[in-house]
Amino acid sequence: MGNAVKQLAILGSTGSVGQQTLEVVRALPHQFHIVGLAAGKNIGLLTQQINEFKPRFVYYQNRTAHPANAEYELLSLEEIACHPQVDTVVIATSGKSGLSPTLAAVRAGKNVALANKESLVMAGEIIINEAKLSAARILPVDSEHSAIWQCLNGETQPAAQLILTASGGPFRHYSPTQLREVTVKQALKHPTWQMGRKVTIDSATLMNKGLEVIEAHWLFDMPFEKIKVLIHPQSIIHSMVEFIDGSIKAQLSYPDMRLPIQYALSYPERLANPQLPRLDWSHTNNLTFEQPDLDAFPCLKLAIEAGEKGGTYPAVLCAADEVAVELFLSQRIKFIDIPNLVEQTLEQHQAITHPTLEEIIAADAWATEKALNLASGDNPW
Amino acid sequence: MGNAVKQLAILGSTGSVGQQTLEVVRALPHQFHIVGLAAGKNIGLLTQQINEFKPRFVYYQNRTAHPANAEYELLSLEEIACHPQVDTVVIATSGKSGLSPTLAAVRAGKNVALANKESLVMAGEIIINEAKLSAARILPVDSEHSAIWQCLNGETQPAAQLILTASGGPFRHYSPTQLREVTVKQALKHPTWQMGRKVTIDSATLMNKGLEVIEAHWLFDMPFEKIKVLIHPQSIIHSMVEFIDGSIKAQLSYPDMRLPIQYALSYPERLANPQLPRLDWSHTNNLTFEQPDLDAFPCLKLAIEAGEKGGTYPAVLCAADEVAVELFLSQRIKFIDIPNLVEQTLEQHQAITHPTLEEIIAADAWATEKALNLASGDNPW
Repeated sequence: MGNAVKQLAILGSTGSVGQQTLEVVRALPHQFHIVGLAAGKNIGLLTQQINEFKPRFVYYQNRTAHPANAEYELLSLEEIACHPQVDTVVIATSGKSGLSPTLAAVRAGKNVALANKESLVMAGEIIINEAKLSAARILPVDSEHSAIWQCLNGETQPAAQLILTASGGPFRHYSPTQLREVTVKQALKHPTWQMGRKVTIDSATLMNKGLEVIEAHWLFDMPFEKIKVLIHPQSIIHSMVEFIDGSIKAQLSYPDMRLPIQYALSYPERLANPQLPRLDWSHTNNLTFEQPDLDAFPCLKLAIEAGEKGGTYPAVLCAADEVAVELFLSQRIKFIDIPNLVEQTLEQHQAITHPTLEEIIAADAWATEKALNLASGDNPW
Repeated sequence: MGNAVKQLAILGSTGSVGQQTLEVVRALPHQFHIVGLAAGKNIGLLTQQINEFKPRFVYYQNRTAHPANAEYELLSLEEIACHPQVDTVVIATSGKSGLSPTLAAVRAGKNVALANKESLVMAGEIIINEAKLSAARILPVDSEHSAIWQCLNGETQPAAQLILTASGGPFRHYSPTQLREVTVKQALKHPTWQMGRKVTIDSATLMNKGLEVIEAHWLFDMPFEKIKVLIHPQSIIHSMVEFIDGSIKAQLSYPDMRLPIQYALSYPERLANPQLPRLDWSHTNNLTFEQPDLDAFPCLKLAIEAGEKGGTYPAVLCAADEVAVELFLSQRIKFIDIPNLVEQTLEQHQAITHPTLEEIIAADAWATEKALNLASGDNPW
């Protein structure tokens, strides 16, 4: 990148990753410049961000509120994602709304800093193939994928194995009885990471780790049998790579999303940022590891199986999980019903292999409706 | 290297690192070929090695035993080290005898797989400057330096900090009273690594880690204040690098010297070797860290201070330590006398800055005599 200021667009700027991306930009104003901001419904925060960063392009869901004298141009997510003035697009939207702008950015050959899980999980094959055609660079923002990416840096041969670490969530050693009684409040308290609501629940069920396994499969072109999950409650080692000679590299830091966000933005360079914390080894003196309990946390197994089967299964997994988490957060189903609802939806799905984008979107719509139907029925999960 | 077989010479082939290098060659016969073997006094083992690997060039100390009908050529260490038929020289000799062949190999522009600590500690400035002139590549073999080297791979900017891990040795939590009573037998029992006698005692005093700090200074061009030592009793993380953004990379494996030896030989490639163990995370489930106790283990402090002062101090440190360890192994001084003898020798030294090789060798001779004198006197260290 030399000394040129990178021109950034942040899609999902009012969410957790979006806000932390802006913190990085605030700390490094000579390296990064905001040209585009996009948010959903949090117009109050978006307005503050617009006043502070003065982007040229803005998107928000409720466009009727657009002030006539605004100093920015209102564009769609896709228009911002592929605009010639944008170098790097940060996809920090949540859920499937990230899919279309991710594809637009990839097709335009952008640097795509990808925090949205659903894009690669639902349409990994399409996105990776498009990126090869356009030479777009997909820069992982998730701490786990960033760790793997950093560990692979400079290595010329494929990895022997990827080891994704997982905190294990707040219910790591819960008994089946305890899991049955989990409340929304408990599930929203993640032991090590501050994140959005959906991803926090997905962390508690380990669905999040399963989605990350699918992402890792696409990002690093690794077969599923070479991607392992290891519980590491302290969230200091963010993931590891084992090489063919048995040597393992790990990436470590305090759990702070600003580091992987910044690395995705500054890559291939690293930037000194005094606001990022330094690991203090007099406090971090014990790192532990456990095997994941697939019986207590079936979402992990469901996700990996859906990834292995491929086709439209991962899209169905995502959609059913989104419904299930919503229903849990609104206290209409129990915590342990989340995997049951996802599993039943997957079981009833007639999958399509190598689906088109339209077929993926159709599978998503089918699964959303199916999961809602299953949940409203008398199903005794 | 492509698919060409690398031509290796091993200086010190009957020692611990030498034997493990031959194990790697045995496991990977299509990658490596032995053209030179050199040993000290263990003629029995050397003869076995000669029969198995059929080197063209051989060195051993007692040349009068040379059989007239031998199928190899007898050369000096230096002649083997710079022979045109040799691609990579493994310097696995112990003590200062590694210095002269290391310099010969470096001046000849070889790949120098360096396991001998004394070369860089005594003459780091000279060796690094010669390597720049000849474009020789110094490939670290020590597990710690190999770990740092692997973590730096692909990084384009200088590290913010190197973190050398140390097992802490067998006397990690010993009280001053317990340290006074340490026996040779106890000191030779290293908790995690199988190594030669001298390096095992140096590990117990932490002198070994101090020497590695000095080596890291030269190998990675890092100021001493950016090289930290961290006690990690399990010896799974072999060292770490912290970058300017606060991200840390670590290299992990079971403590087995064959891995860093093989990496030095195969670099920049990695080679699959089924004989190298894979980390089993169901057994390796707890990694701990402590700050080193510089009061209980003053050798670490003495070494870092000698490294910082530079000039002939590190050579004096090495020589005095060699004498002290010899005297301890022959039960003529106590374990806690080792740092005292080294410190007194250093205190009486009139150092030379930017010394020539001759001045380094003279400082070594002076320190050896001085330490012996101090030990035989009535000094109440």
